[in-house]
Amino acid sequence: MKTSPFAPARFPTLPPLAGFTMATAEAGIKYSARADVWVLVGQPGTHVAGVFTQNLCPGAPVDWSRRALEVETDGPRIVVVNSGNANVFNGQKSRDTVLQTAEGAARVFGGDAEAVQLASTGVIGEALDASKITDVFPTMALQADGWEAAARAIMTTDTHPKGATATADIRGHTVRINGIAKGSGMIAPDMATMLSYVATDAALPQHVLQDLLREAVRTTFNAITVDSDTSTSDTLLLLASGAAGHPPIDSAGDPALLDFRHALERVMFSLSQQVVKDGEGISKFVKINVTGAVSDHSARAIGMSVANSPLVKTAIAGEDANWGRIIMAVGKAGEPADRDTLTVRLGEHVLALKGQPNPDYTEADGAAHMQGDRIEIGIDLGLGDGAFTVYTCDLTHAYIDINADYRS
Amino acid sequence: MKTSPFAPARFPTLPPLAGFTMATAEAGIKYSARADVWVLVGQPGTHVAGVFTQNLCPGAPVDWSRRALEVETDGPRIVVVNSGNANVFNGQKSRDTVLQTAEGAARVFGGDAEAVQLASTGVIGEALDASKITDVFPTMALQADGWEAAARAIMTTDTHPKGATATADIRGHTVRINGIAKGSGMIAPDMATMLSYVATDAALPQHVLQDLLREAVRTTFNAITVDSDTSTSDTLLLLASGAAGHPPIDSAGDPALLDFRHALERVMFSLSQQVVKDGEGISKFVKINVTGAVSDHSARAIGMSVANSPLVKTAIAGEDANWGRIIMAVGKAGEPADRDTLTVRLGEHVLALKGQPNPDYTEADGAAHMQGDRIEIGIDLGLGDGAFTVYTCDLTHAYIDINADYRS
Repeated sequence: MKTSPFAPARFPTLPPLAGFTMATAEAGIKYSARADVWVLVGQPGTHVAGVFTQNLCPGAPVDWSRRALEVETDGPRIVVVNSGNANVFNGQKSRDTVLQTAEGAARVFGGDAEAVQLASTGVIGEALDASKITDVFPTMALQADGWEAAARAIMTTDTHPKGATATADIRGHTVRINGIAKGSGMIAPDMATMLSYVATDAALPQHVLQDLLREAVRTTFNAITVDSDTSTSDTLLLLASGAAGHPPIDSAGDPALLDFRHALERVMFSLSQQVVKDGEGISKFVKINVTGAVSDHSARAIGMSVANSPLVKTAIAGEDANWGRIIMAVGKAGEPADRDTLTVRLGEHVLALKGQPNPDYTEADGAAHMQGDRIEIGIDLGLGDGAFTVYTCDLTHAYIDINADYRS
Repeated sequence: MKTSPFAPARFPTLPPLAGFTMATAEAGIKYSARADVWVLVGQPGTHVAGVFTQNLCPGAPVDWSRRALEVETDGPRIVVVNSGNANVFNGQKSRDTVLQTAEGAARVFGGDAEAVQLASTGVIGEALDASKITDVFPTMALQADGWEAAARAIMTTDTHPKGATATADIRGHTVRINGIAKGSGMIAPDMATMLSYVATDAALPQHVLQDLLREAVRTTFNAITVDSDTSTSDTLLLLASGAAGHPPIDSAGDPALLDFRHALERVMFSLSQQVVKDGEGISKFVKINVTGAVSDHSARAIGMSVANSPLVKTAIAGEDANWGRIIMAVGKAGEPADRDTLTVRLGEHVLALKGQPNPDYTEADGAAHMQGDRIEIGIDLGLGDGAFTVYTCDLTHAYIDINADYRS
């Protein structure tokens, strides 16, 4: 598979994070000669927050992990992720696999099985044998390092591993945030996305982590779409080991968390941008700024309607500044919109102003912007203060090649 | 453009319809050497019902025609349709064009301008000069015949003209229903579709026609989708000249209309099937039967979610019996669904039964069905009695070729 033209030159340096160890292994679930299992262990006292797919037919690992979030434990926090098989839609067999994997992990790495976080990504509807995963646990030597190997082990149709890191100050203590993500197709997150793991050595209780995660996901993972299809396995976890040892904080609104919140959003924004920029078959990266909507929620719905429109996406692939299709997609969103207050921009150029074509706009202006590989669409509804920015990619022949062949 | 593999061998014979005359002309709006304007005139006393796009940025002709439905007139009922330019999003210029076209038509063909039904289809956002259309009116000689020429004149990316006809008995009088339609891309109707004109010599008042139309549209034009994109111009009209002279009928529920209702549904079903079978780039026709949902409404939403999923559509194009993607699309619909009561069929084969793969199903069974050009997907939610059937097509390289190049 061709690497995305937006792939970063190299994986960023993610230094070890106090309180966490990890390892990867080759379980041979689907791929050969590559790692497909990752185990992350947070020291006792590690808290975890999570958001999961809103798909109503989720995988058994999602059901399990939702419950595991609520489990308090004195032991280590274990995360097990495998690629190659999503362990979705195998009825009791799926549930047995989940239970056996969690028990196997607790046996080898310590702690409570009920508190183990699990995720599986890959083919839907094929049986996943727990022993494939549990058999490699005893061979895995946990180390402080290994974020890049982890990012590679959880890949499916991704063309490159995705990671991001940042530091923040909490009451004079420097804490670090490391994150990895995977995802390329079946990307239209709704309160979560594909698989992403963000860890920090900050000392934050579960309810604070959950609040911070919910806030940051809105403008990061929930602002991207590749193909409007919401995965059955989307999982985003935020783990905090507490090793940084700063004074306790009990509210996400605490001003001492301001720098941390910004750093967390930077990491999650970077990861989500890497996911959409590795969108299946991408040739152009598309940013859609919606303003003037009746609410932010309405602006997001309109942005997503434009981002998911096959006609808009194919026009972008064809470098056609086809703003008529943008207006169609605004109108079909079902959100308040008025043709006669609507303004559409492409990069710097105003194409349509308050319901009519801008007489100063020339096709040559539009064509020049469309030939670039970063497309910026501006939509102003002229109705209110609601705003949201959505990120997506175009729809190309390569998307069809990938998905007419790949069994996901 | 390659003709759809599902194109009928020939256009059906649509005999003249008492009370209606028509003509086509070459106005040179966008195409050369082909007719692009059609005028249909119903004799005085003709009633008309209509449903229009739910897109909130509709074209000026849609706004005009919605109002024209309410206008009573003693004169003839005129319909003017042009292809090549949708007259959408040109502000006051769009509204001027609409007014001038209606006035021009009334001047030449008689009747009230306010009662003229207008529709335009083609490029969005380019100015449409009314004189191009009104200039050809005086050259148009109305005749009783001409349905096939009409179906050709309203085509854009359609690969063939679409028509259907049927007769019905009303109180011992035989009446006829003729219909034509155009549409191939930007097809995800919601209470209407692209352009379709259905005419009958039956004698039915406006409110009866409107009720009959609303009922028939539900399982016909509102059951198809090509690409999830809802046009700004969708218009479906039902005109009744009254020339058949049967005794008056004042309610759509009158048992004397039973045969007529069936005939109307047959005509509209045929037209809507022809539209989806001419879906842009189609290689496979797909029927999705949803049963066991909590309501018919819910069944339709689930069917549309599957039909519009790019991953399902590309899997079908690739002849991959990828039922995991079907389950994903059921779950993302946001309608009540339970993984563990869900059954998925492909043609005769049960792939997944109540939450797990059917052990008797083989990949060879699925592959054999997928290699055909008519794919039938069955989804039983196991929750209630709600049912709906959705019709769609696959997503192929040809769709991208058509839409990366065509300016619509």
